[in-house]
Amino acid sequence: MTVYFLSDFGSTDVFAGVVRAVLARRAPGVRLVDLAHDLPAGDLRHAALQLYAAVPHLAEGGVVLAVVDPGVGSERRALAVRSERLWYVLPDNGLLTLAAELDPPREAWTLEPGRYTAGPVSPTFHGRDVFAPAAAHLALGLPPAALGPRLDVAELVRLPLATVAGREGEVIAFDRFGNAISNLRPQEPPEAVHLAGRRIPFRATFADVPEGEAVAYLGSSGLVEVAIRGGSLREQWRLYEGAAVSLHGPEEEPPPLELD
Amino acid sequence: MTVYFLSDFGSTDVFAGVVRAVLARRAPGVRLVDLAHDLPAGDLRHAALQLYAAVPHLAEGGVVLAVVDPGVGSERRALAVRSERLWYVLPDNGLLTLAAELDPPREAWTLEPGRYTAGPVSPTFHGRDVFAPAAAHLALGLPPAALGPRLDVAELVRLPLATVAGREGEVIAFDRFGNAISNLRPQEPPEAVHLAGRRIPFRATFADVPEGEAVAYLGSSGLVEVAIRGGSLREQWRLYEGAAVSLHGPEEEPPPLELD
Amino acid sequence: MTVYFLSDFGSTDVFAGVVRAVLARRAPGVRLVDLAHDLPAGDLRHAALQLYAAVPHLAEGGVVLAVVDPGVGSERRALAVRSERLWYVLPDNGLLTLAAELDPPREAWTLEPGRYTAGPVSPTFHGRDVFAPAAAHLALGLPPAALGPRLDVAELVRLPLATVAGREGEVIAFDRFGNAISNLRPQEPPEAVHLAGRRIPFRATFADVPEGEAVAYLGSSGLVEVAIRGGSLREQWRLYEGAAVSLHGPEEEPPPLELD
Repeated sequence: MTVYFLSDFGSTDVFAGVVRAVLARRAPGVRLVDLAHDLPAGDLRHAALQLYAAVPHLAEGGVVLAVVDPGVGSERRALAVRSERLWYVLPDNGLLTLAAELDPPREAWTLEPGRYTAGPVSPTFHGRDVFAPAAAHLALGLPPAALGPRLDVAELVRLPLATVAGREGEVIAFDRFGNAISNLRPQEPPEAVHLAGRRIPFRATFADVPEGEAVAYLGSSGLVEVAIRGGSLREQWRLYEGAAVSLHGPEEEPPPLELD
Repeated sequence: MTVYFLSDFGSTDVFAGVVRAVLARRAPGVRLVDLAHDLPAGDLRHAALQLYAAVPHLAEGGVVLAVVDPGVGSERRALAVRSERLWYVLPDNGLLTLAAELDPPREAWTLEPGRYTAGPVSPTFHGRDVFAPAAAHLALGLPPAALGPRLDVAELVRLPLATVAGREGEVIAFDRFGNAISNLRPQEPPEAVHLAGRRIPFRATFADVPEGEAVAYLGSSGLVEVAIRGGSLREQWRLYEGAAVSLHGPEEEPPPLELD
Repeated sequence: MTVYFLSDFGSTDVFAGVVRAVLARRAPGVRLVDLAHDLPAGDLRHAALQLYAAVPHLAEGGVVLAVVDPGVGSERRALAVRSERLWYVLPDNGLLTLAAELDPPREAWTLEPGRYTAGPVSPTFHGRDVFAPAAAHLALGLPPAALGPRLDVAELVRLPLATVAGREGEVIAFDRFGNAISNLRPQEPPEAVHLAGRRIPFRATFADVPEGEAVAYLGSSGLVEVAIRGGSLREQWRLYEGAAVSLHGPEEEPPPLELD
């Protein structure tokens, strides 16, 4: 059994390390795979995209522990979710919105830590006191019903975020290299992509344009991305999330960009 | 057996990775749990606080390998320490100051690497050549006396740092989210906290105030913290470590802040 | 069997985590040791130096998975290399240049992912789809010939980079603490090092000079390094990679630095 651990806890403090220690102590035989821990703090869209990118590559039956939780201590629910292929343990704040397109939730439970862990619960560190014990519980093969009452999966919180099979979308995140990732999931490759008033050629990969030039391509998660080869599009174009992206045929030209 | 590894080695170089490789080679059956590796470089107070936060959650009998070592190569001692619950392998520079309040040292040995490892010792990388082999030695259950001569635990270096059960303390560190962590460990919850000339309400958690407002609360390690909900108090208030923090009842008002 | 994983994927996205997941799924019994993942993006010299620093400490027979790959998707080859002590799975872009001095390549194969993995290959994420499956294949003890056609090791791409046993060299990288690492591998300790128009005393370690002073010493990988004790030479001297470094006897003075 494998627990996959994703968070925005960073590595300048022991938050992620303490969660790892709790998992190792409660489920000693379980393998722990860190997915990433320097996600932008509290950025639910970015985190939802990371789950979308990871889920197809996780072993069936694994437990995904995902803690990006700006609402920790508020009335937001804590969840265990059984999907088609995996278990998820995470706050009910929409983190699953995109991954659910690939791996639909089937059953859900509201975590009531008093039922499955004897320790006190810090109102600011549910990763350690609520989520990690629940992930260990499931990784040990114990029944989810012991975690808390059942919840209808239709009630799970969702972000206003979806991939789009059509032509009009937006930038939803940037990766570590400054490449822009859109929510566009094209049925067939376009000729070009419009972004920030520019027409950008669509190619198989960034190696198909010269160093320093912009290029659009199908990213490794099946979404259209735009990059500057050997550079950071985010920095060089000063782009923000939410910028409009669209797919185009051979003859269309982008409208002039209105600057103010 | 588990080795818990904490350092300021970062992840832009292979320092931490090489230590992990040495541990895996010398103690192949031992589980390695990374606590954190991007601690602020050479910041002993921050590192001491991280050990304080982690220690209650580590499995009894485990080996804590803690390498924040600005004095590497100087005459500072290298130590193995047996405490009530754990083993520690670390430089004798005060890293244990706060953790010792929760898990008092019982016995100590000065590491003499020539006794337990055949390799050469780089004067700048004791993590690899002195501390990791000693941690592997203890994780394998070998006797601490083979590591070097015994030392009285009263002689261990201590930082001028302690938690305080009273009302007057100071900011000792900031976490990754910009929240200020004090050394105050209150017996019962105060009404308010004074910091930087402001009176800040004390609540169960930051979710109890509106977005953008300051709040004090009992942090996950039992110390009073001050945060701005959804923001970074460190950046917005331009606070530094060492700022005075105090606990107050319902009627007291903070003195006006003298700015210069 | 151990897989050692080095990359510039960072930890703000799940790139490294997905590679870890693929390795864990394909080679479940294999130990994974992370070497580092925040290497400067696309910096082949820095990455080559990291392999040089790590290789002497890796267990014989292990598989090194090294993915710093600015040319991903171009015509550059993907490789499996059997050296004297280890296996390497990596792009053919010179990453092995320095490590090859310590652990010479003996045999090489060009990876043809269609031969050993059934999945599709993203042109932008060979770490996940080409390199990780090949590393898992070798870690399971399967024959390298199944990965693709054999290649003469003399044909491997090399960077214009070598360690030097003589007196004239250059800064090839900076570490996390801002210390400058040269390519000089002295036969015997010099009296002083010249760098940036300054004469810097050569000592056993930085603890041998007062706080704030510059010092040269033999670094933990056997290369001459220059540091400011307790500070960052990179920031304080505004140094760049490529700066000339030379070794000197007792009487020689550096030429005046021409500033413009």
